[in-house]
Amino acid sequence: MNVEIIAVGSELLLGQIANTNAKYISSQLSELGINVYYHTVVGDNSARLVEAIQIAEQRADLIIFSGGLGPTKDDLTKETIAKHLNRELVMDDMALQAIEQFFNKQNRVMTDNNRKQALVLEGSDVLTNHHGMAPGMLLKEGKQLYMLLPGPPKELEPMFQFEAKPKLAALLHDGGVITSHVLRFYGIGEAELEVRIQHILDVQTNPTVAPLASDGEVTLRITAKADNEQQAYVLIEDKKREILDIVGDYHYGDNDDSLASKLVEMLFENKLTIAAAESLTAGLFQSELAEISGVSSVLVGGVVTYSEQAKTMQLGISAQLINRYSVVSSECASEMALKVREKFGTDIGVGLTGVAGPGSHYDQPAGTVWIGLAIGNNPPVTHRLQLSGARNTNRLRAVKFTCSYLMRELAKLGYKK
Amino acid sequence: MNVEIIAVGSELLLGQIANTNAKYISSQLSELGINVYYHTVVGDNSARLVEAIQIAEQRADLIIFSGGLGPTKDDLTKETIAKHLNRELVMDDMALQAIEQFFNKQNRVMTDNNRKQALVLEGSDVLTNHHGMAPGMLLKEGKQLYMLLPGPPKELEPMFQFEAKPKLAALLHDGGVITSHVLRFYGIGEAELEVRIQHILDVQTNPTVAPLASDGEVTLRITAKADNEQQAYVLIEDKKREILDIVGDYHYGDNDDSLASKLVEMLFENKLTIAAAESLTAGLFQSELAEISGVSSVLVGGVVTYSEQAKTMQLGISAQLINRYSVVSSECASEMALKVREKFGTDIGVGLTGVAGPGSHYDQPAGTVWIGLAIGNNPPVTHRLQLSGARNTNRLRAVKFTCSYLMRELAKLGYKK
Repeated sequence: MNVEIIAVGSELLLGQIANTNAKYISSQLSELGINVYYHTVVGDNSARLVEAIQIAEQRADLIIFSGGLGPTKDDLTKETIAKHLNRELVMDDMALQAIEQFFNKQNRVMTDNNRKQALVLEGSDVLTNHHGMAPGMLLKEGKQLYMLLPGPPKELEPMFQFEAKPKLAALLHDGGVITSHVLRFYGIGEAELEVRIQHILDVQTNPTVAPLASDGEVTLRITAKADNEQQAYVLIEDKKREILDIVGDYHYGDNDDSLASKLVEMLFENKLTIAAAESLTAGLFQSELAEISGVSSVLVGGVVTYSEQAKTMQLGISAQLINRYSVVSSECASEMALKVREKFGTDIGVGLTGVAGPGSHYDQPAGTVWIGLAIGNNPPVTHRLQLSGARNTNRLRAVKFTCSYLMRELAKLGYKK
Repeated sequence: MNVEIIAVGSELLLGQIANTNAKYISSQLSELGINVYYHTVVGDNSARLVEAIQIAEQRADLIIFSGGLGPTKDDLTKETIAKHLNRELVMDDMALQAIEQFFNKQNRVMTDNNRKQALVLEGSDVLTNHHGMAPGMLLKEGKQLYMLLPGPPKELEPMFQFEAKPKLAALLHDGGVITSHVLRFYGIGEAELEVRIQHILDVQTNPTVAPLASDGEVTLRITAKADNEQQAYVLIEDKKREILDIVGDYHYGDNDDSLASKLVEMLFENKLTIAAAESLTAGLFQSELAEISGVSSVLVGGVVTYSEQAKTMQLGISAQLINRYSVVSSECASEMALKVREKFGTDIGVGLTGVAGPGSHYDQPAGTVWIGLAIGNNPPVTHRLQLSGARNTNRLRAVKFTCSYLMRELAKLGYKK
């Protein structure tokens, strides 16, 4: 089976958004061992969409459409396909009910054009939308398969994964698979990582190894082709071991892990509670931890001490200390960590202070960050970061570094990884 | 002139990266008033690339290729085009010199495959690569234009902007411009907004008006074609006024504005200080405000009271109140707002409590959020939200709603917008 993905939406052709749906669907299909030969993007224009469909029918067994299923007039994907295939659009009662419930729940009145979202192509297999209103569809016309998915990634991704992917897996007969595994690294640059594993990158065939850098992290994607999952797993494990023998020190997690999720796992494992006092990050560290479900057993809370006055009044950091060392100092970060730990009665206290930018502040250049950690009754430790990004990149990188730094310090003290 | 963008690279079809080059080029072209009708992605496969070129020649005046100009064997874009157009590849001395210099500078020995990067299509206009090795090309065959650009965004973007764009502008004779303006709405669904301005959407030609929904907001992009910027501005202003006469109540900002940035502007304008007590959002509200540079003059700080104990110990919310009403209640949100305002000595106190999900908690379904606002000495007000998204969508939407809610309540009390 080979696939073409057609994304429908003028916003893509105007350059307002990137076609991340094609990326997502492609990566999911590659896990199933299904080849994608083309991506096409076409605007909200029925005539041009029909032309794109006719071309795709010549070169793909399955055409996957994303977008154009919404309530508005420029949403015309299913109407165009209905006309092209000479099929009726029929009301799907389940979908209509879901839409009505959606409006009731939000205490909003359903306008009539929303009913249009519950129309599906006659004879199609309806894919339920658990995160929005427009249902998806899978239909067969002769040997040709068509799949229609909604445009918003928050709707498309779960629908593809839980509704569409199992149906496609069932349709496949050859059973070949492509499996990917992502290794995540922190604390090493992309160029240096590449140099260190150059000999592996140079001879790669199966599995392939692809480096990618983003937001201060580097990932290596190992992709193996094999007859079955088991064989692919063995290929990936061998390559993984070979890579980690060289750069394992910087490896912190795999696939969907994040530095924050690994930190929370380590806190769970060691039953350690945490509180944070944040200045430049203003709550971002705590908010990143709170992305992980169940975090309430370890995250007690903390304070945002954005102003100098909040640092003295809320945390009880002495004016003398601030006058002597300034708020952007090792001493202040250390004191913030100690005080917040004491105040919230937790095992760990974290202090974050610095200059996010764009301007310099307290005689310190933008990007200067001090992180303090108070772990149990151990003497607090601090670390200075000098970042060079824009304001919000610096804030995010300070949070990532803090997660990594705390994990490292916990490991040093003998806590389980 | 109309354009098709063909991105060449198997990594795109495997879903390893998104086609951000097409997004970038499209947004640049729309500024020049050039229409993009299709994006195509094809793998590192000469036969399929030729087919894609033949299709594009039928429907585009200019075909822009990205990727496949590098030194390795799977880089085959210019070789394929050379064969397709029956043109020779010739060594470009300037490009070769630049590549040699690049290696000298890095103290690395130039391997022979790197010479291949200096080969260009005979008769083409060479586009210098200031950020990498492979030069770009612009060439004409009869009436058909072809442009070849390197794949890495760090090379492609400056090459397009400084080398290609001026050449394209010169090729265009009409000198027209396309200018876009984005109106941002909150508190109204996409479908309802569209119903209310249906008569405008129905007759749109120039300017065009395109609705887009994302993350609980709706935007309308007004795009005008005109002979010059001044005329485009007038067209957009007229259309903007026409739209805001109908749905102006929901309009909160334009272009790059966010709800948080508008709230911070309003706090600046009225010299109001703010503190927040956050439970389910765990610092996200404060962190979103802190994205805006200069916020320290209004954001004093706040507390994250993730655990129940933190709510009583850190904010002094009485155990009786929590026992009687639970932490997910109007009473608790109101008390959090009052207490944090008092504690931090600010003009405004914000309290956020609720159930982020995925599970229900305190007998409340996931997505239940209570927001409390204490403004000056006015009696506190609260609002209940019932969200239906995933955990982190709910947390973000609660923050957005809080920004909008606070702006509305401030306006009611007579503060300047």
